[in-house]
Amino acid sequence: MKGRLTGVGTGPGDPELLTLKAVRALQEADVVAFFCKKGSAGNGRAIVDAHLRPGVIELPLVYPLTTETHKEDRNYKEPIAAFFDRSAEDVARHLEEGRNVAVLSEGDPLFYGSYMHLHVRLAHRCTTEVVAGVTAMSGCWSVAGLPLVQGDDILSILPGTLPEGSLAERLAGTDGAVIMKVGRNLPKIRRALQSAGKLSQAVYVERGTMASGKVCRLEERDESPAPYFSLILVPGWKTRP
Amino acid sequence: MKGRLTGVGTGPGDPELLTLKAVRALQEADVVAFFCKKGSAGNGRAIVDAHLRPGVIELPLVYPLTTETHKEDRNYKEPIAAFFDRSAEDVARHLEEGRNVAVLSEGDPLFYGSYMHLHVRLAHRCTTEVVAGVTAMSGCWSVAGLPLVQGDDILSILPGTLPEGSLAERLAGTDGAVIMKVGRNLPKIRRALQSAGKLSQAVYVERGTMASGKVCRLEERDESPAPYFSLILVPGWKTRP
Ligand SMILES: C[S@@+](CC[C@H](N)C(=O)[O-])C[C@H]1O[C@@H](n2cnc3c(N)ncnc32)[C@H](O)[C@@H]1O
Ligand SMILES: C[S@@+](CC[C@H](N)C(=O)[O-])C[C@H]1O[C@@H](n2cnc3c(N)ncnc32)[C@H](O)[C@@H]1O
Repeated sequence: MKGRLTGVGTGPGDPELLTLKAVRALQEADVVAFFCKKGSAGNGRAIVDAHLRPGVIELPLVYPLTTETHKEDRNYKEPIAAFFDRSAEDVARHLEEGRNVAVLSEGDPLFYGSYMHLHVRLAHRCTTEVVAGVTAMSGCWSVAGLPLVQGDDILSILPGTLPEGSLAERLAGTDGAVIMKVGRNLPKIRRALQSAGKLSQAVYVERGTMASGKVCRLEERDESPAPYFSLILVPGWKTRP
Repeated sequence: MKGRLTGVGTGPGDPELLTLKAVRALQEADVVAFFCKKGSAGNGRAIVDAHLRPGVIELPLVYPLTTETHKEDRNYKEPIAAFFDRSAEDVARHLEEGRNVAVLSEGDPLFYGSYMHLHVRLAHRCTTEVVAGVTAMSGCWSVAGLPLVQGDDILSILPGTLPEGSLAERLAGTDGAVIMKVGRNLPKIRRALQSAGKLSQAVYVERGTMASGKVCRLEERDESPAPYFSLILVPGWKTRP
């Protein structure tokens, strides 16, 4: 395929956290593709709004309406895989015509990013570049002003979907931690932090670096489900002065 | 103190991986401070070179000549702590005069960054802002084009200074991993990856995103000590299509 595929990290939300390289990639793109839900262009598209060339082709890749009841459920897995296959083909059609396609990816593309699903389907068929981005966690500990890890610390990045026991065990056995995918896992995460003896240090960040962002100690957060854009930070650096 | 302290993430090396916010912070700074070794302004200063205002005050914070033989050694710890105290006071003098000080930090400031040593000494005495940056690891897996973690994966960030046994254990018990501080730990890291059954997947990145950067499978790397700017990546995402 003659066109170039570029995965563009858009950073965690603040449009100023775009890199100079991301801005250039957007300006050089013939097509800008982005994953979104029906009825909303989504966060990534909003972040880059000021940098799109007039006349650029926009390619929204609209998630099918599936309820993520259980990840291993065939009724979830199969339509999602088919959707990524279809999306890759939609992008490939532009690449075949020689158009350069930039795919937006919130945060950093190869760190839990949806761009990865296109990358593994297309990278062997065309020239590919990935523009690293500021991750959500970096944005969150920066707005919180929370020194996270230093020196010989270990940092564990954990999904809030882990069972309570293994979450507690991993939290106890690490210096710093970041817990992503909070949502309805919040009460369980809180219990795991409690058993690991780290609840009082945990910091909750919602919509980090966005205009409507919020930071508080996790102990001060109520038990209502957390929104999609939220994570929990546990600082390391025990020996700090 | 009247001046504002800003920790500015400079990203992993490529000057285009500076964020728009970092560029603005540099342009608004009265003083730009940076840690460096005697005789070299260092990597952070080189990255921001094109963005410094003419007439800006430069404040190099020059590391004392200590050999990092053993971290817990008093002959290392005490002079280093005294150096950070002195550096904080050098910065504080400008803040007291009402000057805004930007402190450069390679990668992201609160993620193993030297800026943290100033932050904990000064943040309670002045207005502080941290500008998140692209981490070295994000820069490295992006240049490698290596999808790192996805979905419910666990990512462990490990210092290469860990003892071989615990390194091997942690590598075996995680999905993705990043090993920082490679240097003379390279042979030990290799053995730990071997015992964890992950040596063949490991990728070595040296000076990631810099002009002289290099990426190869760890198995293809010789046993000579790795330079300071190097790390090892182990991809997760077992269920990738
Ligand atoms: C699919 S992952 C995407 C991660 C992204 N690629 C990155 O580099 O950070 C989505 C998770 O990131 C976290 N997240 C993303 N943006 C966030 C923000 N602005 N504030 C807090 N958490 C955020 C949430 O925990 C959410 O469950
Ligand atoms: C003191 S830590 C600084 C981390 C930085 N604050 C960040 O956000 O990534 C230094 C370690 O980062 C890694 N590192 C920094 N820059 C790098 C680069 N360009 N390529 C490879 N590794 C790098 C090396 O493993 C080194 O031991």
